[in-house]
Amino acid sequence: MDIEAYMRTLGRQARDASRQLAAASTETKNAALLAIARRLREQKPALLAANAADLAQARADGLEPAMVDRLTLSDAGVESMAEGLEQIAALPDPVGEITDVKRRPSGIQVGKMRVPLGVIGIIYEARPNVTADAAALCLKSGNAAILRGGKEALHCNQAIATCVREGLLEAGLPAAAVQVVDTTDRAAVGHLITLPEFVDVIVPRGGKGLIERISREARVPVIKHLDGNCHVYVHSAADADKAEAIVENSKTQRYGTCNTAESLLVDRAVAADLLPRLARKLSAHGVELRGCAESLAILEAANIAGAKLRPAEESDWSEEYLAPIIAIKVVADLDAAIAHVNRYSSGHTESIVSENYTAAMRFLREVDSASVMINASTRFADGFEYGLGAEIGISTDKIHARGPVGLDGLTSQKWIVFGNGEVRG
Amino acid sequence: MDIEAYMRTLGRQARDASRQLAAASTETKNAALLAIARRLREQKPALLAANAADLAQARADGLEPAMVDRLTLSDAGVESMAEGLEQIAALPDPVGEITDVKRRPSGIQVGKMRVPLGVIGIIYEARPNVTADAAALCLKSGNAAILRGGKEALHCNQAIATCVREGLLEAGLPAAAVQVVDTTDRAAVGHLITLPEFVDVIVPRGGKGLIERISREARVPVIKHLDGNCHVYVHSAADADKAEAIVENSKTQRYGTCNTAESLLVDRAVAADLLPRLARKLSAHGVELRGCAESLAILEAANIAGAKLRPAEESDWSEEYLAPIIAIKVVADLDAAIAHVNRYSSGHTESIVSENYTAAMRFLREVDSASVMINASTRFADGFEYGLGAEIGISTDKIHARGPVGLDGLTSQKWIVFGNGEVRG
Repeated sequence: MDIEAYMRTLGRQARDASRQLAAASTETKNAALLAIARRLREQKPALLAANAADLAQARADGLEPAMVDRLTLSDAGVESMAEGLEQIAALPDPVGEITDVKRRPSGIQVGKMRVPLGVIGIIYEARPNVTADAAALCLKSGNAAILRGGKEALHCNQAIATCVREGLLEAGLPAAAVQVVDTTDRAAVGHLITLPEFVDVIVPRGGKGLIERISREARVPVIKHLDGNCHVYVHSAADADKAEAIVENSKTQRYGTCNTAESLLVDRAVAADLLPRLARKLSAHGVELRGCAESLAILEAANIAGAKLRPAEESDWSEEYLAPIIAIKVVADLDAAIAHVNRYSSGHTESIVSENYTAAMRFLREVDSASVMINASTRFADGFEYGLGAEIGISTDKIHARGPVGLDGLTSQKWIVFGNGEVRG
Repeated sequence: MDIEAYMRTLGRQARDASRQLAAASTETKNAALLAIARRLREQKPALLAANAADLAQARADGLEPAMVDRLTLSDAGVESMAEGLEQIAALPDPVGEITDVKRRPSGIQVGKMRVPLGVIGIIYEARPNVTADAAALCLKSGNAAILRGGKEALHCNQAIATCVREGLLEAGLPAAAVQVVDTTDRAAVGHLITLPEFVDVIVPRGGKGLIERISREARVPVIKHLDGNCHVYVHSAADADKAEAIVENSKTQRYGTCNTAESLLVDRAVAADLLPRLARKLSAHGVELRGCAESLAILEAANIAGAKLRPAEESDWSEEYLAPIIAIKVVADLDAAIAHVNRYSSGHTESIVSENYTAAMRFLREVDSASVMINASTRFADGFEYGLGAEIGISTDKIHARGPVGLDGLTSQKWIVFGNGEVRG
């Protein structure tokens, strides 16, 4: 098989299909989404059988249990894929929305219209639900999609792809609107990310290694999501109850998510008062505390039952633990806190706890991260919590899409002009 | 000189300065812009002397007259640079603007805040005014800038850079907010576009060769502007007077600009009626007409005095002439016109002339270009005509900035959350 020729064919077909999708009505796109959902439910036995074949192969290949876990599709998993499609059908269609129209002195009226990006390449690892999920988000936003899933999920992805294709055709849309790469050859990814004539943007969903490799080699823009080293900063004017609730929730509500807090900064003026209280809460959850010298001195003096104390090293300030561990640093003031965050953060999400208006607003403005919060848990940085209705990922880029990426993030805006025969003088 | 070390130093200094700029007040940034304008006026003799040295060198090197022309800075040119700075000072500050705040069921209020991109690298050719212009746009939008001008303008750029630096310092901003690359070594560009840790976006301003090279080699996002192969489509329901005025203005108001029309499409139903009239108007301006077989037959039969007729070749449909030449094609209908434009256009600007609402709205939605117009001259596709107040270029990209790029295009939006102690359940 000539992988390059194969990928170019997929690209050309996607580009052609993208023209039809861009012009498709909301009704047609929703009809396709609902037809795909119905077919997923109807084909549940086939999907589970395909998944069983993938799982058998994965176990034979000795895949680690966490990977096998991610690969597993349950009865409820199929139902939740179908529901996800129905939810996306229910969202407002972003395509064609006209905004910001203003009359200019020349007489023309200038505005913007939201339009699809064109062709989106999605590269992901084992989870089979991403196939249905990503297909639906691309379809609703009027984009053609080329999906490249992990080789471990090949049979299940093919079975899902069949449902998607049949749903598209039933609604009168081209089958090439969503294409699943039908080879496990790794060279396919290399070609997909270097076809700017056919692919407008790449969205990698997976581990850091995958994303770094794609970012390095792509000749097409990448909407990427790297680490989440999120900070909670307890300012000298913090309300102690809010600080306690926010630190606890940001760190302990879930350990493995990218919007979990990994670093805690506390102002020197309130450290002796507040740090022991915060540490007590975290220690009750079994969280290990890696502190700077100053915070360790305070915490050791406080003699907290069951506290796991450890000195922080320089590398701790940049770490995404994804585990019950938090780095703790006492800072001199707001300026020091902002400087620390802007130096060590991965630019994902940071929160200040403060009752002081000017301090809170300065933090909001001066911290250079995708989400910046006042008196709220970092765990809110999420497409559903933000009201996007769906999420294809969380971008740590600054260009194009920043933070949670929903349907709007898969579109751009073109300029439109309403004239009445005007010419330029 | 170790060029790589030098460029990394510039990058590190720019990154540091960008933090200060992002937090700078509107008053401080405007004070710097006005101080730079004053210094440019005060230093006019020094600027003109530096330019004279560049010109003498350029003539000695045998540069072509068009290049020497672009390199020349006149007395009025200095005044217009200073005025440009004052105009940018008068524009609203985009940084810190809060929009789209909505309350969520959790109680948090989620919105967006406009923020600088960080560090912008501008790579341009001979025109010395770009130095002041680009510095001002970056400064007002809160970004640090690294400017790399053509080696032909080195002395003049250095003289302008001195005014910029002194103006920044006078207003209390760091000198590294705007740095001019002080070497003519071409390797400097290669380093500038491959430093993602220090440079957030590259804006090349120059010829197609420069932009293509940078797009190919950059490891940093590029806001790029390639060709302008703009179309005017005269639909079967066009008003003949509007069609005539728009075709004439789009093609002949200026030949060398990227928003000039290079292709004319006419519906078959009205071609025999309208084409001769349009061709007469264009021929009166001396425009050469490169037609498809069908349009040539109509135009030859019309026997237009002084008409320069020539058969169009396949390559004409993609050509950016930047000259008194236009490609003409008779199309079957709206669908054929949209398909032709989406196939051959460079994605810059297209206009439909039609009195039919549905046809016009379909063209607006389905044509995949940065600017799409109804009944207006393509020449309006311009930052000033669109009301942006200033323009750093016109992007033919889809990601991030599309069409004319003003101050907003040099910023992005981060998510902000106003909470009151909320945690995620």
